[in-house]
Amino acid sequence: MERQNPIVTFTSDFGHKDGYTGVVKGVILSICPGATIVDISHSLPPFDLSAAKWVIKNSFPFFPAATVHLVVVDPGVGGSRKNILIQSGSHFFVGPDNGIFTPVLETAQAAWELTEERFFAEAVSTTFHGRDIYGPAAAHLAAGTPPDRMGSPLDLSLLVRLDDPVYLSRDDEISGEVIYVDRFGNLISNIPAEVLPDGARCFLKDREIGPIGKTYASATKGDSVAFTGSHGNLEIGVCQGRADRKLGAGAGDPIRIECRRLAE
Amino acid sequence: MERQNPIVTFTSDFGHKDGYTGVVKGVILSICPGATIVDISHSLPPFDLSAAKWVIKNSFPFFPAATVHLVVVDPGVGGSRKNILIQSGSHFFVGPDNGIFTPVLETAQAAWELTEERFFAEAVSTTFHGRDIYGPAAAHLAAGTPPDRMGSPLDLSLLVRLDDPVYLSRDDEISGEVIYVDRFGNLISNIPAEVLPDGARCFLKDREIGPIGKTYASATKGDSVAFTGSHGNLEIGVCQGRADRKLGAGAGDPIRIECRRLAE
Amino acid sequence: MERQNPIVTFTSDFGHKDGYTGVVKGVILSICPGATIVDISHSLPPFDLSAAKWVIKNSFPFFPAATVHLVVVDPGVGGSRKNILIQSGSHFFVGPDNGIFTPVLETAQAAWELTEERFFAEAVSTTFHGRDIYGPAAAHLAAGTPPDRMGSPLDLSLLVRLDDPVYLSRDDEISGEVIYVDRFGNLISNIPAEVLPDGARCFLKDREIGPIGKTYASATKGDSVAFTGSHGNLEIGVCQGRADRKLGAGAGDPIRIECRRLAE
Repeated sequence: MERQNPIVTFTSDFGHKDGYTGVVKGVILSICPGATIVDISHSLPPFDLSAAKWVIKNSFPFFPAATVHLVVVDPGVGGSRKNILIQSGSHFFVGPDNGIFTPVLETAQAAWELTEERFFAEAVSTTFHGRDIYGPAAAHLAAGTPPDRMGSPLDLSLLVRLDDPVYLSRDDEISGEVIYVDRFGNLISNIPAEVLPDGARCFLKDREIGPIGKTYASATKGDSVAFTGSHGNLEIGVCQGRADRKLGAGAGDPIRIECRRLAE
Repeated sequence: MERQNPIVTFTSDFGHKDGYTGVVKGVILSICPGATIVDISHSLPPFDLSAAKWVIKNSFPFFPAATVHLVVVDPGVGGSRKNILIQSGSHFFVGPDNGIFTPVLETAQAAWELTEERFFAEAVSTTFHGRDIYGPAAAHLAAGTPPDRMGSPLDLSLLVRLDDPVYLSRDDEISGEVIYVDRFGNLISNIPAEVLPDGARCFLKDREIGPIGKTYASATKGDSVAFTGSHGNLEIGVCQGRADRKLGAGAGDPIRIECRRLAE
Repeated sequence: MERQNPIVTFTSDFGHKDGYTGVVKGVILSICPGATIVDISHSLPPFDLSAAKWVIKNSFPFFPAATVHLVVVDPGVGGSRKNILIQSGSHFFVGPDNGIFTPVLETAQAAWELTEERFFAEAVSTTFHGRDIYGPAAAHLAAGTPPDRMGSPLDLSLLVRLDDPVYLSRDDEISGEVIYVDRFGNLISNIPAEVLPDGARCFLKDREIGPIGKTYASATKGDSVAFTGSHGNLEIGVCQGRADRKLGAGAGDPIRIECRRLAE
């Protein structure tokens, strides 16, 4: 039952049609035949750094120590953005330095720029660094190459950061916004559930959603409900339906929490 | 070549965008590092128990003995539906008790309610039991934990069932309906091919499809054809086209079979 | 770290909804438990032999020697097209003889028709040869069965070929066309980058795209750019956008290259 096979997770906006993800996996398995490759998402909206960041943040903690996380959402491919490798806690991250790794920088110990070309593909294209630089780097790392042999150290404070919009808490009100819409149409906010007092009421674009419930099932089918999502943030959903469509809302829309209980 | 790695299949309506399937795989590999995880479908229509049931029924028999089948289509998450584990023949099934496992109940030997919280995630959300309850249970099972240590026995007769619509056979006519539409637009019926006499003619919504052929290739490109599908049921397709669009039909539409041969 | 597990790649137009790919994987793992199965694409447009051919051509070279490539895009299933196995270089290919393997025929040493029914499923359907013939054949091959035990030799020159449209080069002009559109909306041409002289200018449907750049990042966001794609062919893209939509173009549209530099 025991297996020491290294795990490489793979997140991208490559889609499922063109074989681009398969090519990268072929490259990885050619370098590290024992790798177990786990797809996180390849259907991220093209070039959407914010979505990539959200998905990474919420998936990597569920993997074992020493997992290598390969992430390729890379609108700047072929430009001047750096190719990087980050060690954060017991995890490794490989991809472009464009802000997608912001969530792991807080706990990062070290980062390197991938400069050692002997770990790249023989011919490096200008448009597919997932295949020619990041995939090979992730595979060499998984196969046991120490990170410091793959490039030169980077100052962590100089890496690109993409901060989430912050929520504001004042008096009896908390103001936040929708930061992600998932495949079910759930509207996920930037407000951590632990700041919400009991009995708080939730408004989306000034429309009352109602008191904050426990889960979808606390509402009737088709009704809107605000609840603590699986990521730990306040989330607005529709029981067995799509909140984004029913409420005409999406990323960036304002959420307001009234913390005072109404007189009963 | 020989490998004793346990197989966990994974079926859900989680989609491919948000990383939800990847998270569950991280959980599984953390508990059972040797698991081989096989995706069956994650693009089931959200909350569609009938589609989930159909896909499970037609996929599990092709896996080796001792495979663990993790299925999470769970409109009632956080509500009162039970979390269950079923042993049926040489296979195991883990997921919610909402009818999706109906096809395996006939041959089931035993079922358990997943009640032993030490096999759950440390913190159990109210909205993502695939990550917090079912994924861990499937992984522990794959890693060798006996089912009876994971919960208390359930009376099989009390599990939720979702029966297929039945077909009717009388005189020289068989009446059934479309129960599933696949990605090619094929209309799959609830009529088993073995009840169809030679020379029977097929009608969909009272429109004649013609005599029952052997395969798509028995028709000309663009023509409709009724034939025995790969699941063993009567199926209506269009040669290199989509029957659902050409015939304006979908799940629930009536199919009628005239068993009498026409005078020739 | 070392693993001798055989690799089976899997390319199809089966989609991700119905469990058809999962079923084939169950069949493969039942025959060859140690197989590492890698998805290349299952979202190929249904019955699109040309897309299948393009994806195979660009993915197989990145896999290790002895990889088995299972490809099922099979509009003629149940008809008279042959079931074949090709050895080309250090790779093996299994699927229907309908032209999808054209790119590997040039380097092929041998081919066989899959005639030995003991390597098929016990019951062979007329509509799902991926499950009943090709999947089992790929698995037996991966498990070590020699190809010549699985069928009778075929004359390579008689296999079906689907040739790409050719590009024409005359005087100071090169004429080609768009042969594939990827998920990013990039328009991939049949013109190899190495025939393009410095300073050549690119026209799509007689509209000037401009001089040929190095990558997306050589353009401003939203601008069109012609460059050498990762496949080695001339490609037209839009920086962080979709060229197919912005330029209203798709497969078959003409591309013209003017090789003369303008007076400066």
